[in-house]
Amino acid sequence: MQHKAIFYHAGCPVCVAAEENLANAIDPARYTVDIVHLGEHPARVSEAETAGVKSVPALVLDGTAFHINFGANLSDLA
Amino acid sequence: MQHKAIFYHAGCPVCVAAEENLANAIDPARYTVDIVHLGEHPARVSEAETAGVKSVPALVLDGTAFHINFGANLSDLA
Repeated sequence: MQHKAIFYHAGCPVCVAAEENLANAIDPARYTVDIVHLGEHPARVSEAETAGVKSVPALVLDGTAFHINFGANLSDLA
Repeated sequence: MQHKAIFYHAGCPVCVAAEENLANAIDPARYTVDIVHLGEHPARVSEAETAGVKSVPALVLDGTAFHINFGANLSDLA
């Protein structure tokens, strides 16, 4: 079964480092990785909130939110 | 080239969730993943500190530390 990973970010330096390292380290054979820039897609902020995302960068794996270091609060992006 | 990933944890519930989801999602074809329980291997706390780890769970990818959610401060484990 293909798992779903969504990486939410806002283009911040902390976000870019997390994307280049952590998001790219996810196994493409098992996960479909969707990279979402919330600054460019503000309509998806509520989707991230529903998944439990409080700040970016964050990685949602099969519906569970993992906050990676800290770039910005989600409330500052909406 | 094989990349190196080290997942530091302390057996806490937040750590276990991060290990089961995030650490296991890392691509085994490109990364060698080392899972370190700092409560059982306190001698490795200084190694984690040197890599920039402040709290667990944390994932160090090619020497860069990524803190995943928050379980416990490293200073509480030493």
